[in-house]
Amino acid sequence: MLDLAVQRLPVSPVRKISEMIEKASNKHRIISFGGGAPSLAPPKEVLDFLCSEFKRDAHAASSYGSTKGMPRVRELITDTLKREERVSIDPEKELCLTEGGTEGLFITFRTLLAPGDQIILSDPTYLAYYPQLSFLGDGVTHLPVHLQDDFQIDVNMLNEAMTKRTKAVLILSPDNPTGRLLDKKVLKAIVQICEDKKVWLITDDIYKDMLYEGKFHNAREFSKCDNIISCCSFSKSASMPGFRLGYVYGPASFIERVAAIKSYISLCPSRPAQLCVEKYLENRGRVKKKYLEKIVVPTYKKRRDAMAEMIERYLPKAEFAIPKGAFYFFPDMSRYLTRMDEEEFASKLMEQKQVVVIPGKYFGEQGEDHLRFTFVSEPKERIEEGLSRMAKFIEENKL
Amino acid sequence: MLDLAVQRLPVSPVRKISEMIEKASNKHRIISFGGGAPSLAPPKEVLDFLCSEFKRDAHAASSYGSTKGMPRVRELITDTLKREERVSIDPEKELCLTEGGTEGLFITFRTLLAPGDQIILSDPTYLAYYPQLSFLGDGVTHLPVHLQDDFQIDVNMLNEAMTKRTKAVLILSPDNPTGRLLDKKVLKAIVQICEDKKVWLITDDIYKDMLYEGKFHNAREFSKCDNIISCCSFSKSASMPGFRLGYVYGPASFIERVAAIKSYISLCPSRPAQLCVEKYLENRGRVKKKYLEKIVVPTYKKRRDAMAEMIERYLPKAEFAIPKGAFYFFPDMSRYLTRMDEEEFASKLMEQKQVVVIPGKYFGEQGEDHLRFTFVSEPKERIEEGLSRMAKFIEENKL
Repeated sequence: MLDLAVQRLPVSPVRKISEMIEKASNKHRIISFGGGAPSLAPPKEVLDFLCSEFKRDAHAASSYGSTKGMPRVRELITDTLKREERVSIDPEKELCLTEGGTEGLFITFRTLLAPGDQIILSDPTYLAYYPQLSFLGDGVTHLPVHLQDDFQIDVNMLNEAMTKRTKAVLILSPDNPTGRLLDKKVLKAIVQICEDKKVWLITDDIYKDMLYEGKFHNAREFSKCDNIISCCSFSKSASMPGFRLGYVYGPASFIERVAAIKSYISLCPSRPAQLCVEKYLENRGRVKKKYLEKIVVPTYKKRRDAMAEMIERYLPKAEFAIPKGAFYFFPDMSRYLTRMDEEEFASKLMEQKQVVVIPGKYFGEQGEDHLRFTFVSEPKERIEEGLSRMAKFIEENKL
Repeated sequence: MLDLAVQRLPVSPVRKISEMIEKASNKHRIISFGGGAPSLAPPKEVLDFLCSEFKRDAHAASSYGSTKGMPRVRELITDTLKREERVSIDPEKELCLTEGGTEGLFITFRTLLAPGDQIILSDPTYLAYYPQLSFLGDGVTHLPVHLQDDFQIDVNMLNEAMTKRTKAVLILSPDNPTGRLLDKKVLKAIVQICEDKKVWLITDDIYKDMLYEGKFHNAREFSKCDNIISCCSFSKSASMPGFRLGYVYGPASFIERVAAIKSYISLCPSRPAQLCVEKYLENRGRVKKKYLEKIVVPTYKKRRDAMAEMIERYLPKAEFAIPKGAFYFFPDMSRYLTRMDEEEFASKLMEQKQVVVIPGKYFGEQGEDHLRFTFVSEPKERIEEGLSRMAKFIEENKL
């Protein structure tokens, strides 16, 4: 018999869909508003550089390296943090590369929290946090956030939610699934509460480069930093999710433990992925800057705007906020969900119209009657096509 | 405060050395008999194919995929198992790709064993098993193996070591650090004991392609297989450790749980790594076969033979076996270690002569007074140079 935590761990709906789409014979017919997978290729310079490194020294470009990552890549990451977010991190002791953001979060949770410890998350938020945390035996306190408050965290409620067992607060900004960017003063208040109560603040910054409006603030702007841990990834920013590279930074004593754990989970980060990031960040982020400013942000902003327009046109009874960052709309669909819940809606929509959306309940209790649509995967015409299929689905099913 | 398992997790000496060498300014002066990192580049066809895939469809070659791996790559792996080891595995349900062998082992342990469960390992064996298992709260029973028995596992002793708490037996063949290949009849007896006692048998097959003498047997030759789980990796066989790709196969119900856990640890395997393996295995393993037969095995066999000769010449008082497979010699150095233990020897040898070796005690109690030398990293002349520096070190330190 397997132990309970292993038996009970659910399979993520996004992963199931990923597997289903990979096997589908009619891939092109499927319109995916499902997983948050960038539809752009990584910058050409990055892949060209990797291939030139294979030519220059194929052995070195394919070899093991230190668990925390190549020294040069770690320095480029901390230089970037300095330049873009005005935070000083020691590349040697305060930073560790990880297999995408997922491993960074998993190891962070495992390092900071012991079974029974409490962590506070907003609800809704990223769906994989819950199973990651429950698998590790950690307790989650949910902090409801609402469309009418622009999904901002209620700081008084956070204060009240803290107990003796609270070990950490986790924030994701810009958020998945709501697209909400935390207000500067809300962020500042959260940082101060965590500092006062001596609680870890974990910031998941995976979408920080995916901003259409507003400005991203690093939580360290408001703190002496010794209780802040940040996780990030190149999967979204550099459109290289298949390379599996992210990073986590925080106090040296914490990072030392992260690296020890990582060495027994995955040994060391991917070398080809690190070479890509070397090119992406070198020369004061020349490639990154150009790629984000000229390609990524304009492309996704256009799609976001198109999706907002199409939701209004085809789903006039849905209520939603325009996301400031990240890749998602999270409309409240309750006025269409009188005869089926959002899970049944999503599953029948896929069956009947080959449009993939994610049921809101996976993102937390507050996500009930919502659907998550990503606008990152499909170009404008297919966004329109997907929403018009949805309207037909609603009509045909009399919803 | 971090919990005890996190606090106590040691940093592997091989990882420390990897970090130290990566930072060293005098890299070329260092002769490494340390980590088991292939010194060959991956097959040229493999890297060329990857770069052509980047040109053909950069987005697809950099994108997420299903957690268990690309269907085509999974099929190529099971075809290879069928052809080379005569075992039939369902690529859809009985196989999951992993971030190198390390993740495969970590998730296998986490899936099968609950805290307090017992697993039986030979002693000495691969040094990372111990911290992986103790981190997970699992108990290890050590089964001493000895040079005079060619490091074979004593089957009666294994039988006696089993208790009600024994949940699994782990075998590594060819072995690290001893280079021992399990005899067919010993393997058969182990399989039968595990079957009789309804205990999992985990086989770590990472070195199965690194054979200089004898024949590798898949444990399934002797069993109805429903209690056997095998972990493997492309790091050694295809000289692509920096790509981080391995796989684990076993009963469908077990693999389903492995994939669920993997999805929350690292989401999905590296796509570029999978593309490399696609080329490596396609056409009935044409690239693999040629690469192993013409390049890998002859190169390492020559080095192995050179190292055997040099140990005899420069360390005449060391006792050792010639490894049949894998990358290591594991000489008993007790006659040189009268004034310092092997850890001090290794550390002073590095300081004074810039030769890296790994102290035997990390591989288990039976490893005391031994050193592990890998012959995989250095060409013949440097193997000679390293051993002659060691002889000088012994002379200068009057050992």
